Amino acid sequence: MRSTNCYTIGIDYGTDSCRALIVDCSTGREIASGVMEYPRWAQGLYCDLTSNRYRQHPLDYIEALEGAVACALKNAAPGTAENVVGLCFDTTGSTPVLTDRNGIPLALTPAFAGDPDAMFILWKDHTSVIEAEEINALATSWSENYIRYEGGIYSSEWVWSKVLHILRTNSAVAKAAWAWSEHCDWITGLITGNTSPETMKRSRCAAGHKAMWHASWGLPSETFLERLDPLLAAMRPHLFSKTDTSDTKAGTLTVEWAKRLGLTAGISVAVGAIDAHMGAVGAGIAPHVLTRIMGTSTCDIMVIDPVLLGDHCVSGICGQVDGSVLPGYIGIEAGQSAFGDIYAWFRDVLAWPLRNLCSPEIVDTAIGQILPRLTAEAEKISPGKSGIVALDWFNGRRTPFANQTLRGALTGLTLGSSAPMIFRALVEATAFGSRAIIEHMKQEGIGIDAINAIGGISQKSPFVMQTLADVLDMPIRVVRSEQACALGAAMFAAVAAGIYSNIPEAQAAMGSGYTAEYKPDPARTKIYDKLYRQYLALAKFTDPEHN
Amino acid sequence: MRSTNCYTIGIDYGTDSCRALIVDCSTGREIASGVMEYPRWAQGLYCDLTSNRYRQHPLDYIEALEGAVACALKNAAPGTAENVVGLCFDTTGSTPVLTDRNGIPLALTPAFAGDPDAMFILWKDHTSVIEAEEINALATSWSENYIRYEGGIYSSEWVWSKVLHILRTNSAVAKAAWAWSEHCDWITGLITGNTSPETMKRSRCAAGHKAMWHASWGLPSETFLERLDPLLAAMRPHLFSKTDTSDTKAGTLTVEWAKRLGLTAGISVAVGAIDAHMGAVGAGIAPHVLTRIMGTSTCDIMVIDPVLLGDHCVSGICGQVDGSVLPGYIGIEAGQSAFGDIYAWFRDVLAWPLRNLCSPEIVDTAIGQILPRLTAEAEKISPGKSGIVALDWFNGRRTPFANQTLRGALTGLTLGSSAPMIFRALVEATAFGSRAIIEHMKQEGIGIDAINAIGGISQKSPFVMQTLADVLDMPIRVVRSEQACALGAAMFAAVAAGIYSNIPEAQAAMGSGYTAEYKPDPARTKIYDKLYRQYLALAKFTDPEHN
Repeated sequence: MRSTNCYTIGIDYGTDSCRALIVDCSTGREIASGVMEYPRWAQGLYCDLTSNRYRQHPLDYIEALEGAVACALKNAAPGTAENVVGLCFDTTGSTPVLTDRNGIPLALTPAFAGDPDAMFILWKDHTSVIEAEEINALATSWSENYIRYEGGIYSSEWVWSKVLHILRTNSAVAKAAWAWSEHCDWITGLITGNTSPETMKRSRCAAGHKAMWHASWGLPSETFLERLDPLLAAMRPHLFSKTDTSDTKAGTLTVEWAKRLGLTAGISVAVGAIDAHMGAVGAGIAPHVLTRIMGTSTCDIMVIDPVLLGDHCVSGICGQVDGSVLPGYIGIEAGQSAFGDIYAWFRDVLAWPLRNLCSPEIVDTAIGQILPRLTAEAEKISPGKSGIVALDWFNGRRTPFANQTLRGALTGLTLGSSAPMIFRALVEATAFGSRAIIEHMKQEGIGIDAINAIGGISQKSPFVMQTLADVLDMPIRVVRSEQACALGAAMFAAVAAGIYSNIPEAQAAMGSGYTAEYKPDPARTKIYDKLYRQYLALAKFTDPEHN
Repeated sequence: MRSTNCYTIGIDYGTDSCRALIVDCSTGREIASGVMEYPRWAQGLYCDLTSNRYRQHPLDYIEALEGAVACALKNAAPGTAENVVGLCFDTTGSTPVLTDRNGIPLALTPAFAGDPDAMFILWKDHTSVIEAEEINALATSWSENYIRYEGGIYSSEWVWSKVLHILRTNSAVAKAAWAWSEHCDWITGLITGNTSPETMKRSRCAAGHKAMWHASWGLPSETFLERLDPLLAAMRPHLFSKTDTSDTKAGTLTVEWAKRLGLTAGISVAVGAIDAHMGAVGAGIAPHVLTRIMGTSTCDIMVIDPVLLGDHCVSGICGQVDGSVLPGYIGIEAGQSAFGDIYAWFRDVLAWPLRNLCSPEIVDTAIGQILPRLTAEAEKISPGKSGIVALDWFNGRRTPFANQTLRGALTGLTLGSSAPMIFRALVEATAFGSRAIIEHMKQEGIGIDAINAIGGISQKSPFVMQTLADVLDMPIRVVRSEQACALGAAMFAAVAAGIYSNIPEAQAAMGSGYTAEYKPDPARTKIYDKLYRQYLALAKFTDPEHN
C-alpha cells in the first residue's frame, strides 16, 4: 500500500543532539531535517570525566525534541506538518533513568532536579563496573542463565548494572525510585500520554539487548534480582513482562504534544528502539548483509532467520533478540569498542609537541590537518611494506568476547617506522578487528557476504573503507543517507502508521540507496590474509583465553 | 714509576671526527684537546644511505689527525709538545680497508682515489649481510668453529664479511687488493713508518673481536677461506698470525710524522684498539664492573679472569678475546643495537606534524625541545602506572644472540596513552634490554655488580640513568671524563711508553673519577621486576627461539 504526499518523522537522539528527519513515505526523499544540541550537556553539566560518569537531564531531551522538530518543519515547505502521519524515536542505549510511580524521571521532580543520579545514565557511563561483575558472576551460576542471549557477558553499560549502582550509592534516589525506563520508551510514552511503568509499551530492542528480557521468562526473576539486591527485586513488580517490536504503534500523539511540536494530534507514534538497530534498517539490512555504524567505535548489526539459528546461543556478542532489528528475524548486535577513536588517539599523540611547544594560534589548524595528511601519506605505502602489525583493543574489546581490560599494541617497529606507517598499521588493525568479528559470526553459523556502512568514517574516509574491503575480501556499500538512524525510524513510523504492511516493504520504497561501493582488490586481499595471521598471533599473545 | 710533566696523547677516531686529548700522565688531568671533522664525510661523500653503505676516505683520517693534534697543542700551554712521550689510537671497528702490498689503502693510489670500495668500510656499513650469512653457515658446519669466541654469530659489520663483499662485487679493486687493514692498525703503522701487511703490528682487540683471530689458530685457515672464496684465501698469506695488546709499543713516531704533528720524533706509539674497549679502560674497568658506552646504541664491555672463564665459550655475545680490553683478562663485548636512537625515533615520529604542517622557522626550535619536555613529563609518571610495556629491538638485537631482523613493539596501549607515557615505556624498555644482557652474562658465569657509564646519554639524561639503576637494581657511576676513549688510549700510550708498568697502575693514576652515582630505589626496583617479566613475555612472543 502506498500513499502520496504523506510524511513520517524519524527522531534520532544521539550522544550530543536530537535530530528530526521528515521523510516522504512514498519515495524516501528526505524533505527536511532539524537538529538541536542538548543545552545542559553542551555545558558539561552533571558529568565527571575522571570517573566516566555521563548523565543527561530529561529537560535536555524535551527541549532538544521541540527545537529539532520546529527546525525541521521550518526547513520544509509550508503545509508539510499537516501531512505528517507518524513519528518514531531511536535513541542511544542502554540509557535508562529512574522514575517515580508515574514513570516521570526523578530529575523532573523538584527534589531531584539537580541530582545526576536522577537523570538519564548515558550509554557510555562506566560507573557500574563492579555491579556488572556481580551480575555476571550470579548469572553464570544461576539455574536459568539470563545472559545467554546477551552473548554470555553482561556489560557495565547496561541498565541493570546502572540501576543497581545508583540504588546502592544514592539512598535518597533509591527511596524515591519506583521503576526505570529506557530513553526510547520514556520519550515515546511522554508524547503519547502514557509513561506508566506497568502499562506503557516497552521496546523489544532495548529490553532484549540490555535488560536480560526474553520471551520465555520476561525480565529476570524476583529471586534472581533479590539475590543481587532486595532494592532491585522490589522494583520488578512495577516493570513489564511484555515488549513490542518497533513496527507496533505505541500510541497516538497527545493534544498537548501535538501543539508543542506543531503536528496533528492523534497521529501514530511507533515503539522506539536503539539507534544502531534502526540505523541498520535505514541502511537496508537483510539476512547476510552486515550493517556497520562506523564512527569513534563501531556497532555491527546482523539479522538471521530464527529457524536457521534455532536454539543456538551465539557466544561472545552483545545480544541476540527476536525482532530487535527486523521483525520476524533475530537481531544480532556486535561491535568494536574503538575504531575512529584509535585514529584520533594517534592524532593526539602526534599533536603533543604542537600542544606543548607551539603558540596557540597555529595549534588548532595544524591538528586539524594531521589526519588528512597522514591518510594521504599512508595511502602511498604498500600493504605489508612497513612490517608493522597493530592490535586494535585500545578501548578493550567489545566483540568477540567483551573484555574491557584488554589493550592495544604496535609490533614490528623499527627506527625507520614513520608516523604514516604507524597510522596505516592502525587502520589495518581496525579492519582486522572487523574481520575477527565476521569470522566469529561465521563460526557461529551467521554467514555474511556484504556490508552496508553508515556513520562518519564511512562517509569521510575512503582510505579506511577501501582497506576494510581489502581485509574482509567483501564489498562494502556506503549508504547515501547521512541520517540512516532517523531514516530507519521514519520507516518504522510508516509501518506503525499503516502506510506499509512491513519493514521490507518500507525499505524498498524509502531506502536511500548507496553513494559508493568499495570492492576488494585481490592482490591486497592476499597480503592482508598473511598480515591477519600475524594479527591473530598478537591477539593470542595478548588474550590467550579467547584467541 | 712516575714522571712529572710528561704527557701522552690519546687519539680517538669517532664516526664523524677525530679528537686528540693531551693527558698529564702523573695526574690524569686533561690538559687540552682538539677535534676535527672528516671533511669528505661531512659532505656526505661516498655513502649511500638507502643501501646502508658508509665509506670513509683515508685522507679524511689523515687530515683530521693533523687538524686535531694541531688544535690540541694550540689549546695547551706552550712547551707542551716537547713533553709528549707517547701516542695511542682508538678507532671505530670493524672499519677495514683493502690495501696494496705496501699496506697503502687503495683509495690513496691514483687509480682508486674516488672508489668507495677502496676506502674504509665504516663499522655501521651493512652492505655485506649476505656474506655474513654465508660465513655463519660455513663456520657452524666447519671442523673448527672459528666463530665460537665471537659469541657464535659473525656479523655483517665485521671485516671478513666486508672484504668478501667487495672482492666479489668490484673486480678492479679485487685485482689490486693485496691485504686488508683495520683503521686502528693502519693509522698506527702510518705514523710509525711500517704499514707492511705482513710485518706491521696488529691489534689483538680488532683481530680477536672482528676477524675470527684466536691464539690457538691465528686467522681462519686457508681451506676455510678458500671454501668461502678463493679471493679470500689468496689474501691470507699476506696477513698476520700474531697480534698484540695495546700496552705494547707498535713503533716510534717517524721524523716525517713528528714534523706533521708538531711532536718529537722517536716517541712511543702504542698498538691501537677499538674505541669502546679503550673507553672501558678510561672509565676504570675492572672485573665485575660493566662499562657501558651509552649513546645512540650501547657497547658493553666486561673483563673476566681467564682462569675463571676457562674453556667456556660465552654464547650470544660479540666476542671474548684475551687482552682485548685489559691485558691479562678476557675482554668481553656485548651491547644494545639501539638505545638513544629509540628516543630519537620517537621524537621524529612526534615531529611529523611539525615537519609537515608547520612553517620552517618554528620547526627546529620545537623539535629540539621535544625530548627535554617529554623527559620532564615522563619523570612525573609512576613506574607501571601507564600499563605500557615496550620492546627495545627497534634496530634488531645485538646481545644476547644477535638478530638484526627482530623489531620493536609497544603493548598495553589505551586511548589514554599519552606521548610522555609512551616515552617512559621506551626508556624502560631500553633498561630492560640492558637487564637481559646482564642476566645473560650471569647465566654464562660472568657476575656484574656495578656499572661505569660513559657516552652522551650518561652525561645528558639523569632520567634514563636513574631508570636504568632502578631496573638493574645496581649502582651506576658516570665517568667524569667526557673523553673516556681518548683517556683510555692515553693510558695505553703511557704504559707502552714505559711510564707505568701496567694498565691498572695507569688507571689508578690517570683515572678521571666520577661525577654522579645513581643508586637504585628499592620501591621502583620491585615494580620493575614485575614489568621485566612482561618484557620477557613480549620478547618470547617476538623471538621464541632465544627467550
